[in-house]
Amino acid sequence: MSDPAASRSCLTVVLAAGEGTRMRSALPKVLHRAAGRTLLGHVLAAAREAGSCSLAVVVGPNREDVAAEAERLAPGAPVFVQAERLGTAHAVLAAREAIGSDYDDVLIVYGDTPLVRPETLKRLRAPLAHGASVAVLGFEAQDPTGYGRLISEGESLVAIREEKDASEEERAIRLSNGGLMAVAGRHAVGLLEKIGNRNAKGEFYLTDVVEVAVMSGLAVAIEQAAEAEVQGVNTRAQLSVVEAEFQRRLRAAAMENGATLIAPETVFFSHDTKIGRDVLIEPNVFFGEGVSVADGAVIHAFSHLEGAHVGEGVSVGPFARLRPGTRMAAGSKIGNFCEAKNAEIGEGAKLNHLTYVGDATVGPRANLGAGTVTCNYDGVLKHRTTIGADAFVGVHSALVAPVSVGEGAYVGTGSVIIESVPDGALAIARARQVTKEGRGAELKARLKAEKGG
Amino acid sequence: MSDPAASRSCLTVVLAAGEGTRMRSALPKVLHRAAGRTLLGHVLAAAREAGSCSLAVVVGPNREDVAAEAERLAPGAPVFVQAERLGTAHAVLAAREAIGSDYDDVLIVYGDTPLVRPETLKRLRAPLAHGASVAVLGFEAQDPTGYGRLISEGESLVAIREEKDASEEERAIRLSNGGLMAVAGRHAVGLLEKIGNRNAKGEFYLTDVVEVAVMSGLAVAIEQAAEAEVQGVNTRAQLSVVEAEFQRRLRAAAMENGATLIAPETVFFSHDTKIGRDVLIEPNVFFGEGVSVADGAVIHAFSHLEGAHVGEGVSVGPFARLRPGTRMAAGSKIGNFCEAKNAEIGEGAKLNHLTYVGDATVGPRANLGAGTVTCNYDGVLKHRTTIGADAFVGVHSALVAPVSVGEGAYVGTGSVIIESVPDGALAIARARQVTKEGRGAELKARLKAEKGG
Amino acid sequence: MSDPAASRSCLTVVLAAGEGTRMRSALPKVLHRAAGRTLLGHVLAAAREAGSCSLAVVVGPNREDVAAEAERLAPGAPVFVQAERLGTAHAVLAAREAIGSDYDDVLIVYGDTPLVRPETLKRLRAPLAHGASVAVLGFEAQDPTGYGRLISEGESLVAIREEKDASEEERAIRLSNGGLMAVAGRHAVGLLEKIGNRNAKGEFYLTDVVEVAVMSGLAVAIEQAAEAEVQGVNTRAQLSVVEAEFQRRLRAAAMENGATLIAPETVFFSHDTKIGRDVLIEPNVFFGEGVSVADGAVIHAFSHLEGAHVGEGVSVGPFARLRPGTRMAAGSKIGNFCEAKNAEIGEGAKLNHLTYVGDATVGPRANLGAGTVTCNYDGVLKHRTTIGADAFVGVHSALVAPVSVGEGAYVGTGSVIIESVPDGALAIARARQVTKEGRGAELKARLKAEKGG
Repeated sequence: MSDPAASRSCLTVVLAAGEGTRMRSALPKVLHRAAGRTLLGHVLAAAREAGSCSLAVVVGPNREDVAAEAERLAPGAPVFVQAERLGTAHAVLAAREAIGSDYDDVLIVYGDTPLVRPETLKRLRAPLAHGASVAVLGFEAQDPTGYGRLISEGESLVAIREEKDASEEERAIRLSNGGLMAVAGRHAVGLLEKIGNRNAKGEFYLTDVVEVAVMSGLAVAIEQAAEAEVQGVNTRAQLSVVEAEFQRRLRAAAMENGATLIAPETVFFSHDTKIGRDVLIEPNVFFGEGVSVADGAVIHAFSHLEGAHVGEGVSVGPFARLRPGTRMAAGSKIGNFCEAKNAEIGEGAKLNHLTYVGDATVGPRANLGAGTVTCNYDGVLKHRTTIGADAFVGVHSALVAPVSVGEGAYVGTGSVIIESVPDGALAIARARQVTKEGRGAELKARLKAEKGG
Repeated sequence: MSDPAASRSCLTVVLAAGEGTRMRSALPKVLHRAAGRTLLGHVLAAAREAGSCSLAVVVGPNREDVAAEAERLAPGAPVFVQAERLGTAHAVLAAREAIGSDYDDVLIVYGDTPLVRPETLKRLRAPLAHGASVAVLGFEAQDPTGYGRLISEGESLVAIREEKDASEEERAIRLSNGGLMAVAGRHAVGLLEKIGNRNAKGEFYLTDVVEVAVMSGLAVAIEQAAEAEVQGVNTRAQLSVVEAEFQRRLRAAAMENGATLIAPETVFFSHDTKIGRDVLIEPNVFFGEGVSVADGAVIHAFSHLEGAHVGEGVSVGPFARLRPGTRMAAGSKIGNFCEAKNAEIGEGAKLNHLTYVGDATVGPRANLGAGTVTCNYDGVLKHRTTIGADAFVGVHSALVAPVSVGEGAYVGTGSVIIESVPDGALAIARARQVTKEGRGAELKARLKAEKGG
Repeated sequence: MSDPAASRSCLTVVLAAGEGTRMRSALPKVLHRAAGRTLLGHVLAAAREAGSCSLAVVVGPNREDVAAEAERLAPGAPVFVQAERLGTAHAVLAAREAIGSDYDDVLIVYGDTPLVRPETLKRLRAPLAHGASVAVLGFEAQDPTGYGRLISEGESLVAIREEKDASEEERAIRLSNGGLMAVAGRHAVGLLEKIGNRNAKGEFYLTDVVEVAVMSGLAVAIEQAAEAEVQGVNTRAQLSVVEAEFQRRLRAAAMENGATLIAPETVFFSHDTKIGRDVLIEPNVFFGEGVSVADGAVIHAFSHLEGAHVGEGVSVGPFARLRPGTRMAAGSKIGNFCEAKNAEIGEGAKLNHLTYVGDATVGPRANLGAGTVTCNYDGVLKHRTTIGADAFVGVHSALVAPVSVGEGAYVGTGSVIIESVPDGALAIARARQVTKEGRGAELKARLKAEKGG
């Protein structure tokens, strides 16, 4: 489809000043997360993906944390403070300095409405390219109770009617106000400044821009979106609804791309998870941020991955945890009750059971027995372990970093390795077995007698 | 709201004599559990929370197990045995001795209908304070097929019509009989004794009390509840429906109180789970009975907690198991593949990986390496381990209880500690490493040759 | 119910030649799995359970993998190759040689429609016993858009009308074509050969057999099935829908048989899982193929079982993994972070924590401490471990196979056992503890100084 907005300059104003008291949280609402990313992050990403937009963010008073997140995610975008909370139009005007510049289009979006799609933002701007001065995003509400209704004549929006002011006929309208708007840049400040606050709360409402524009003889258009896209977050319950919708999208995309999810509803992705073709994901897998899984890998049930790369044909889990910095080469395996962190796992290497590998390099085809642990922390500092190709590390071995095990080397079962082991060598640190006939039975008898006593 | 029932005396009769053959279980129906509590326990709790009621429980013949549960949960409440199963009215009259006392109100509830809310029980008694002799709990059935319909005139109930006896017009009524009733104490025994058994099964049905009351010129009222509240349990499938409704309520309450549940549908609470504000619960967490989680804690995915206290800002899991008697102080951490039982974990202490701590005290800021195990069981008796503040226990250490590790002490990697370690000391029990050049390669060659041979 | 089909000979032709490009998979569509079995396997099983049918399978060109699966699951059944993909009727005729034999009934089913029930296949054949020449399986579509509609006169089917050819009135029909058919054996080849390919794609459509039969004056009947039974698999999303329906059936059956599933939607069965009475399954359990669970067992949350037998009253998990060849005798226990593979666990034996038992026999009442590992792999070969009745194996012991621990024997904590331990003996392999006063504090100070430096 042709994109009339592509050649027009645009500013997106993100309103992120809401207090979110119904979240009952010390954290501001827009810093809560869904699919591993802050709500604000989702909105900024959608705005950026929607085209060549400049960004401005409006935050509440004393919200350095929100400002910092905005600066982290949109470096260079101006952050404005809405010192008093006097309504949404007032909030937009906090960014007056940015809006006043010569943008063709000004998009107004909300930091607590993270599901809006970039394509929708593009569509919302389209009417401005065709002469409208304002475009409002509407949606067909399943149950419109409580929403402002969009009153239209032909293609034009003539008013947004709040529930309490609506006639019975108007209440039957399901097309409702989604809150997001696009305003022609040359009219934006003028229209916003004309909005008054003669209402019960004495606030300046952005929705009134429609009335102002219509009274000024300007055209106001409606664009529609799915109801899910305009779902706002005011409570933890709504946050969970937003999370569920993100997950629905991510699961559908993974399946569409050729992954099998045995039970999609039990797999949790992050916004940036990358899943290849013919990947099999068993039930109950959690993907934190920064995970990529190559073609043909199998992620067994009860696995937890963050910041990890899973190579082609790799097997993970069940009950595996991959922490940030784990990179598994093709055909390698991390099995049950194993944890890897900041670790390079070579092609075909195997960590099958009860193993912790941290700050380590494991060579191709190396085999680590059950209970192998890299001791990377001495109580103060972290150190690195290197295990060579084709090395075999026996069960219950502790590799005290910094240390290396050479190519093709053997580490005997139950060894604490404190000196590096050369290629092809055998290292062992183990007490000799002593077996005492009859003493097991004696011991048991004695313990039982003590218990009896 | 004012509570007209508060000043009236009340007896709640809990009918718990059903056999539950469709459960296909050796366990009587009312002893099956939902949200970690027996069905009978839920009903008794609802009755108690509803106000200052006396309780009486009617059990089936030879059901000492049900009687014992009733006595455990409601000490002192009389338990009556319905020797023969001759219908619900007959069951209520098994408690005649208790009913005959001078209660203002007699509530009749069911041991297999555990979702009824205390507020509903209060409301059900209210009409008695205003002159009604009987009040019946009704509900608008989604699909009323099979239910008795409530036939009313104005505010009064005139009959409960069973499906098979209903006219077509009556079958269209969705207001159905939920089974629970309140009866004026001074009429209760008299009304119940007038109920006959001239019906196909020759049983005495409690529903007939309505007809009896109406014929006696007494007023019968209807109170309504949500359909979910009167969901009975006759099959395991219905038990799972009841469990789901309890979970729905518990999840909603946790979110309402300010916890984030990334995927509420994957978090399972017990009836008594306490969750603080700004607690984050990742997907797939199971809470058994007796768990409390303080503000700001994070429970990562795949965690299983029972009888444990999780302090402020604590991190649990992923893949952690807290068993009864675990108490984690503020800022402590129990990580992946770790188990704690009957253990005090001090402020800021860390058990990060593959650790079992049982019958132990872990001091503030102590750090237990991967694979630390407290050996609390010698095959016969259990013993206690104490680890001091700031102690550092190396990887793969076994602490053979009874034993203590002092403040600031170090335990070397791979040590079996059988004698207590003083404050600030270093203890080590480890064989010296021997490295043999070339012997790893030889060993592999030999094993391969054996395989070939 | 009487089964008119029982005495009639029957051939079931399974069409398994579809490419399944929308799956985006290197694997052919019918080899994808649901409930642990290939789609083709489900269809072949349904055909076999439906009665004494012969089977024939039609595969696409160069699909030796599909042919191999067919031969594995239905040894002796002829496999035919549809060399060119010229439509469903053409596919059926690839099996002409088999059809030409003297079967009373020919059933035509699809390798990608795995939910059809055996009872439904029986019912579909029934009209042939009563004189019909063709019987078509229809279903009431929730939303019939896109399906061929069944146009009937009285009991007879007169046409299958494709969406694009349907009148408005016909589009209102919800009774749709499910694809499966039964054709009288004596007419089958004749009718199929009369089907032409004068259509947009130039293909031979099986649905046209209805028109051909009607024009030949033969009776065509309709049998109905639930919509879920005819759900086909063309995408991974549809595969997940099919999986969900299999799980729904399996969960309902387990509950019906007397198991409690606290959260049925989180328990995943395989097609062949056997669950006894009064089994309790906590949330989040995964059953791979070949698992049986006896009466009264408890499977705790987060358990993963494949190819294992769980005996009466056994406790598994939470966080347990049972791999193929595990057999747990009555009253035994495998607890958290434990893995068993190819292992016999004796009556009342306990593996409570962090244990790996592979290629092993564990005697009755034996107790394996946390971190017990059987070292069954030396890097080249696998060996077996035997642990006697009432043996006690201390924490962090490694049993280097081949090795045995005798009845009532004790293995000291932290031992690497390389020689077999006689009955009643005590074996220990452990370095003596050395404790150095003040050295822990010194070490810490030094490490901190290094860090500072």
